[in-house]
Amino acid sequence: MKSTIVDPPALAPGTLRIVPVGGLGEIGRNMTVFEYEGKLLIVDCGVLFPEENQPGVDLILPDFSVVRDRLDDVVGIVLTHGHEDHIGAVPYLLKLREDIPIIGSPLTLALTEAKLKEHRITPYTLDVREGQTEQLGPFECEFVAVNHSIPDALAVAIKTPAGVVLHTGDFKMDQLPLDGRLTDLRSFARLGEEGVDLFLVDSTNADVPGFTPLEKDIGPVLESIIERAPRRVIVASFSSHVHRVQQVLDAAHAHGRRVALLGRSMVRNMTIAAELGYLKVPEGVLIDFKKAGDIPDDRIVYMSTGSQGEPMAVLSRMANLEHQIEVGEGDTVILASSLIPGNENAVYRVINGLTKLGATVVHKGNAKVHVSGHAAAGELLYCYNILKPKNVMPVHGEYRHLFANAALAIATGVPESHTILGDDGTVVDLRDGVATVVGQYDLGFVYVDGSSVGEITDADLKDRRILGEEGFISIIVVVEAQTGRVIVGPEIHAKGFAEDESVFDGVKPKIAAALSEAVENGTRDTYALQQVVRRTIGRWVNTKLRRRPMIVPLVIEA
Amino acid sequence: MKSTIVDPPALAPGTLRIVPVGGLGEIGRNMTVFEYEGKLLIVDCGVLFPEENQPGVDLILPDFSVVRDRLDDVVGIVLTHGHEDHIGAVPYLLKLREDIPIIGSPLTLALTEAKLKEHRITPYTLDVREGQTEQLGPFECEFVAVNHSIPDALAVAIKTPAGVVLHTGDFKMDQLPLDGRLTDLRSFARLGEEGVDLFLVDSTNADVPGFTPLEKDIGPVLESIIERAPRRVIVASFSSHVHRVQQVLDAAHAHGRRVALLGRSMVRNMTIAAELGYLKVPEGVLIDFKKAGDIPDDRIVYMSTGSQGEPMAVLSRMANLEHQIEVGEGDTVILASSLIPGNENAVYRVINGLTKLGATVVHKGNAKVHVSGHAAAGELLYCYNILKPKNVMPVHGEYRHLFANAALAIATGVPESHTILGDDGTVVDLRDGVATVVGQYDLGFVYVDGSSVGEITDADLKDRRILGEEGFISIIVVVEAQTGRVIVGPEIHAKGFAEDESVFDGVKPKIAAALSEAVENGTRDTYALQQVVRRTIGRWVNTKLRRRPMIVPLVIEA
Repeated sequence: MKSTIVDPPALAPGTLRIVPVGGLGEIGRNMTVFEYEGKLLIVDCGVLFPEENQPGVDLILPDFSVVRDRLDDVVGIVLTHGHEDHIGAVPYLLKLREDIPIIGSPLTLALTEAKLKEHRITPYTLDVREGQTEQLGPFECEFVAVNHSIPDALAVAIKTPAGVVLHTGDFKMDQLPLDGRLTDLRSFARLGEEGVDLFLVDSTNADVPGFTPLEKDIGPVLESIIERAPRRVIVASFSSHVHRVQQVLDAAHAHGRRVALLGRSMVRNMTIAAELGYLKVPEGVLIDFKKAGDIPDDRIVYMSTGSQGEPMAVLSRMANLEHQIEVGEGDTVILASSLIPGNENAVYRVINGLTKLGATVVHKGNAKVHVSGHAAAGELLYCYNILKPKNVMPVHGEYRHLFANAALAIATGVPESHTILGDDGTVVDLRDGVATVVGQYDLGFVYVDGSSVGEITDADLKDRRILGEEGFISIIVVVEAQTGRVIVGPEIHAKGFAEDESVFDGVKPKIAAALSEAVENGTRDTYALQQVVRRTIGRWVNTKLRRRPMIVPLVIEA
Repeated sequence: MKSTIVDPPALAPGTLRIVPVGGLGEIGRNMTVFEYEGKLLIVDCGVLFPEENQPGVDLILPDFSVVRDRLDDVVGIVLTHGHEDHIGAVPYLLKLREDIPIIGSPLTLALTEAKLKEHRITPYTLDVREGQTEQLGPFECEFVAVNHSIPDALAVAIKTPAGVVLHTGDFKMDQLPLDGRLTDLRSFARLGEEGVDLFLVDSTNADVPGFTPLEKDIGPVLESIIERAPRRVIVASFSSHVHRVQQVLDAAHAHGRRVALLGRSMVRNMTIAAELGYLKVPEGVLIDFKKAGDIPDDRIVYMSTGSQGEPMAVLSRMANLEHQIEVGEGDTVILASSLIPGNENAVYRVINGLTKLGATVVHKGNAKVHVSGHAAAGELLYCYNILKPKNVMPVHGEYRHLFANAALAIATGVPESHTILGDDGTVVDLRDGVATVVGQYDLGFVYVDGSSVGEITDADLKDRRILGEEGFISIIVVVEAQTGRVIVGPEIHAKGFAEDESVFDGVKPKIAAALSEAVENGTRDTYALQQVVRRTIGRWVNTKLRRRPMIVPLVIEA
């Protein structure tokens, strides 16, 4: 399924090169590199969260190989907004060169700085607002307000003599946003008039028909639930969703309840948002978690993390009665969040657990307590018609999303030949209003795993999947160096196995016999002897136990 | 979250005991045991498919401990329909006693017999139809037609002097079913008039508001897609969904296409269904897969398995270009199926892969190509109002489903005190129209894993999860038996690890030193020495690599 790898030609003068490094083919690790006249500009640098077939992986980074050898040419990293899939990999890039300037809106920068602080990095930053234009090396960047599930998101128009690129970042087009900050379609119209040569546009919801409902519509639902709740209310959502938290604060305040924030990231992000004025905390509504127990049950709302069923987060621990707050009869739990694919079973386990404890569980399956942060098909059509871009490359999505987005562009009149269905590493050159795919880099997944970055390979992950599903058997034999005679063993140990280890008693004589035979036939090399052990027990396990575990033979000379 | 275990009292004469053994707390492994006057009747005996936190497990069976010591008292196994979650565990139960009679409708029995044949078991069967009554030991069983996503499903009314229980099996209430076979609400009404003391009722869709749409409505959608498809059409669905396949056959036939069945279970089940007259194959429409290549691309429909993204099934192999049929531009793939929670990422991988190959992919997210087989809340309300049961115990569902179903019963007037929210192993006694929970058995998950049944423990699964996520390190040291002096090692091997094994060179001297110290302090016991090794390397790995792998130390005396 991998695109064919083609080395791009050297970049011709007067040409703008665009390389999406991450986010095409996946929802996450968004990163795009722009090159002009020897200088590089990066837009976003996010992480991707692993799927079930990537066990043990903590995070997945974009492949930095496109910029690794040219770090001194990087004029800056523009961050469109403060979500992990757009800023999460910044610390890993800055570890390669700490003084790359970071450009973004105040909230985006504050969240990025908080993250960098954990990595003990103090970045160089440039804070920008909508309407502002900054010259970053040869790139003239105009920042345009867009509306998303976090405040202060920006699109960026990148202007060079070779052409103009508009990159939306993540966005939707809520027409009555909570903070009044609209996606600035007037600027989109003006930029369109001036001519947008290439439009990089968020595809996450391109396959969802119609329009994303208003964030504002959730407020009354939250209010009516909180108003009627007989006891405690626990609301779980994303820890960066300032407007969702705002609505919870307002609803609680309207019905005489106080709110305690739960979860490290929730407390950190909301403290930042409140300090910067994005979160308007009604006088006296917030209360420290430690003091929340003193408030009567029908006067408190807990605002927590864990809406995706993450086993270590507050909500899962509550469902397992492993949290200080013992959920019980009369409590109401609201999952005011999406359900990210792959998390279904975990989230349902949490819902089952909380229901069994007696709580009423409200979620997007049974009430209107969540809306998406991404433009659906109907909004994207507006966008294309207002902008009228010359070329389009859908970004931010799995292939099915990119494909659906391209179809929308084509439906509004963008020629199919001007619609680029790219992949991570696709190299696009823009010159005289013509965007052409000129190459394809071979970019991989870069896994963060414990303290290692980029060392876990797909072979390691395959080993893990085998270990996880089938367990392993280790067989140790100590042989006399000179004669090859077995001194100790075979000792057999197995893990992740159904059977008692005594089940292997049957195969030990076979292994010993196979080894003797090999030694008699002149085999002395321990690797070759190990293969003899592997084959003998492997065949036996497959036939006898119908399993294919990892087999780790070890022949030691003593 | 486990219910409190309480031994039930000895069963009093004149009392009917009901024990749901599986299906309460999970969607799958449905099994209920009825006891009266020393005899046992079993309704259904299905399997559950494992979730991502049960790696390597093939199947999960009901815990047979309730019947294991009383197999001679079992008068029969009534099977309500032919789905795996209702018949899949029959072979495992019959391995305990082969001559337990199996009672079911013709299609149900045919599918069960095909399954048993693979286990080389020829069962004793009794074939029954709707409207029929059979005396099975002390249990008078009346069979009632119900409508589901497989033909020939039956509810069963179990009548004893202690009271009457109606068990729906899986059902919905399609009012215009494809085969005209309605859920027999007239019989429900009559049974209600006569008095149903306990109603065991399918909960799968109890939390879905409204009504399940008609299966019939899918036909025109399939037809219009097949009519307009420029090239090949591949439809994936469940291999037992006779009516869905029927609609594909009819749509293909109407537009001059032939149909080839793909996938072993699809071919097997549809052959059975056609032989028994449940699948009406239009003259000449079916063609053998081997000959399908000779047909022009716009004259063929492939009907395949793999709608859940199962990696080994036809559809995934097509998406990975690992199947004989090379999907390409112009092909249309229809996933005429549900999306079972937990399968999302796998299914999306298939959709992305097929889209990338150029196929148009139609699924329930973008077209009306699937309806559920289970009654939604609106239907259940009808059912309660027609039946007016004295007591209700929701079955077939996770806790959230059972809870939603109980709420529906209560809304129609069943007293809350007569609504039992049970668990697997809950013991209910019925006498004089009163159903009482009298105990709770401690029933576990029985894992089938390779050739082992019930041997994999939760501890083994935990080991597998650790192995899968963190890998393992084995450390082998050979010591001289008399002195404890290290002769060979420490040899360190690691799997599922990012780092090269040379990373462990740093810890080897520490291990050797720790061992020497222990030996000097008089430790000779190899287990104690192994613990020294484990602690030393464990601490080092946690600090240095920030990982918590499984550590397998082995000290061998030579």
